Amino acid sequence: MKIGVIGAGQLGRMLALAGYPLALQFRFLDSSADSPGGQVAPIVTGAFDDPQSLERLAADVDIVTYEFENVPVSALQQVSQTHAVHPPVDALRVSQDRLLEKQLFEKLRIPTPPFRAVESLDELRAAVRELGYPSVLKTRRLGYDGKGQRYIRKPTDVEAAWSALGSAPLILEGFVDFEREVSVVGARSTTGEVRAYPIVANTHRDGILRVTLAPHRHPTLQKAAEMHLKRVMKHFDYAGVLTIEFFVQRGRLVANEMAPRVHNSGHWTIEGAITSQFENHLRAILGLPLGDTAPVGHAAMINFIGQLPPRDDLLGVPGLHWHDYGKAPRPGRKIGHCTVVAASAVERDRLVRKVMRKMPR
Amino acid sequence: MKIGVIGAGQLGRMLALAGYPLALQFRFLDSSADSPGGQVAPIVTGAFDDPQSLERLAADVDIVTYEFENVPVSALQQVSQTHAVHPPVDALRVSQDRLLEKQLFEKLRIPTPPFRAVESLDELRAAVRELGYPSVLKTRRLGYDGKGQRYIRKPTDVEAAWSALGSAPLILEGFVDFEREVSVVGARSTTGEVRAYPIVANTHRDGILRVTLAPHRHPTLQKAAEMHLKRVMKHFDYAGVLTIEFFVQRGRLVANEMAPRVHNSGHWTIEGAITSQFENHLRAILGLPLGDTAPVGHAAMINFIGQLPPRDDLLGVPGLHWHDYGKAPRPGRKIGHCTVVAASAVERDRLVRKVMRKMPR
Repeated sequence: MKIGVIGAGQLGRMLALAGYPLALQFRFLDSSADSPGGQVAPIVTGAFDDPQSLERLAADVDIVTYEFENVPVSALQQVSQTHAVHPPVDALRVSQDRLLEKQLFEKLRIPTPPFRAVESLDELRAAVRELGYPSVLKTRRLGYDGKGQRYIRKPTDVEAAWSALGSAPLILEGFVDFEREVSVVGARSTTGEVRAYPIVANTHRDGILRVTLAPHRHPTLQKAAEMHLKRVMKHFDYAGVLTIEFFVQRGRLVANEMAPRVHNSGHWTIEGAITSQFENHLRAILGLPLGDTAPVGHAAMINFIGQLPPRDDLLGVPGLHWHDYGKAPRPGRKIGHCTVVAASAVERDRLVRKVMRKMPR
Repeated sequence: MKIGVIGAGQLGRMLALAGYPLALQFRFLDSSADSPGGQVAPIVTGAFDDPQSLERLAADVDIVTYEFENVPVSALQQVSQTHAVHPPVDALRVSQDRLLEKQLFEKLRIPTPPFRAVESLDELRAAVRELGYPSVLKTRRLGYDGKGQRYIRKPTDVEAAWSALGSAPLILEGFVDFEREVSVVGARSTTGEVRAYPIVANTHRDGILRVTLAPHRHPTLQKAAEMHLKRVMKHFDYAGVLTIEFFVQRGRLVANEMAPRVHNSGHWTIEGAITSQFENHLRAILGLPLGDTAPVGHAAMINFIGQLPPRDDLLGVPGLHWHDYGKAPRPGRKIGHCTVVAASAVERDRLVRKVMRKMPR
């Protein structure tokens, strides 16, 4: 069985590494041959929206998935004429547009911040009057890792935010004064079987995920997160891994965004859960029984942003697992991560502090 | 850093899969391009003893290791002129010859069955008189998975054994009426750091390993096994993973054979130990700190011999990890394995019985 993966970043690379023990084979499509995925499996080089590149990928594989959220929907639709494509193209379409995403949450009765579509400065002014200060102006599309966002804290911020982002379709969201950010990652098989991982607590800096602590044990939030996840999955007749990121506000989940793919906040599952999110994504799209999502201890995932910490030092930390994506260092770029797994949350937190002291500043 | 691996079987494949997260790259040398290793990394096709093939491999890599015990020593010696080769060529040379191996055990005061070199029928008769019945006649070289062995249980077996094996240099070994077979796998880094895994209990059938239970908790045997392992490692100034297989006879270890490589009885470490034998082999030959060898629970590794059991059935066993090597089925051939990890030995044994019921007969 040969899996075509659109996008050959670290997510694709980790998919292939999870699939090899199942005797799956992989072909990537990406613009650069030396991408993380291209270092571990054959790659078709070309643009994601180039029909010929997509055809070359499809011609060589049995089924297609994607690891990258900004694949053009039209490209996936083309491929889906001849091949099973999972997760469903419609889930990708909705996740690419913050407005459609929040409208879906609302429709499925999943709490989400108040929001208004914004297409002009006048509409922005009206929306700010309704949602109040602070609020957050975001591009509807192509925002990730904190890009394409402006906070509006006072009346004079309105025009500045508009001129920074105003050339694109926008959404204004009410600011959520959250206590914590959590996410839920789960898989739904083509057979309809669903398994969710424990929710995890995420820490961002400069809009980029830095640390995930897993599991974040909280039975009430866990139950709510799984309910929301299943609603979205059912809506799309979903197959594959789906992620929803939430704010926790006054002890309740408020959905921020969804990702129709394996997710950075699920990397801890490679060593920290019985079955990794990557293996479960593959099992799900192939209709195989899903693997156990139970944690095997208390894990922390720490991203390497911009540059790697000193490897030989960190490999000496007991139980640390090193993941270098084979990418060139560049400011703000995710180039690797490490995971520590401990028998208790206290011991896990001790290891995290130990790792953090060795991280580059 | 690019690692050249002589041999592209499942051991090489699992080495590459363990090395990719460390951003290591791999090149294999093997006679068949569609070998398990060749499915996950580029491969030079050629004979192990073909100087040109070896040169092509070496030209493209920084360091060389091997995953196959029958690599000609002369071939490795050639490569070692220009490249670091680990484990040491001398360890391979000794492990290829049961006589040299047992002589080394004897020299290092590691208990081993009584043995005699045999080069003629007369010598065999004399050796049988000394070692008694039953005894085991073995080819000194190229025996594995029970091949090249004859039991001598009574006087009339002597000539039959001689005519079956007599064309090759032989060794007669006193029969060990063992209670159990165990093995120890450990790594020694180029820095001299040593880490041993817990000893494991192995069950063979028709001379092929079927099941490994890990850990086999027995502090006295563990201590003895580690002592023996370290003596052999020190003798060779060893770097890499080394395995010694023992019989347990009247509560004592009796060394049967050694393998200067990652080992089938260490496959459980992928999911059952904090760091796998494959990652530790790579860390060891690169002089990186070794990873923690502690078990994460109670594991069992079950080999798939000749044919795969029904995959979709087995993937439904909670916590089961599937390893399909991508090899064509063939009687007696190791084509995959699975590992189960449980919180207790009792639960692990329950899972083993569950898996065994699904195995092809």
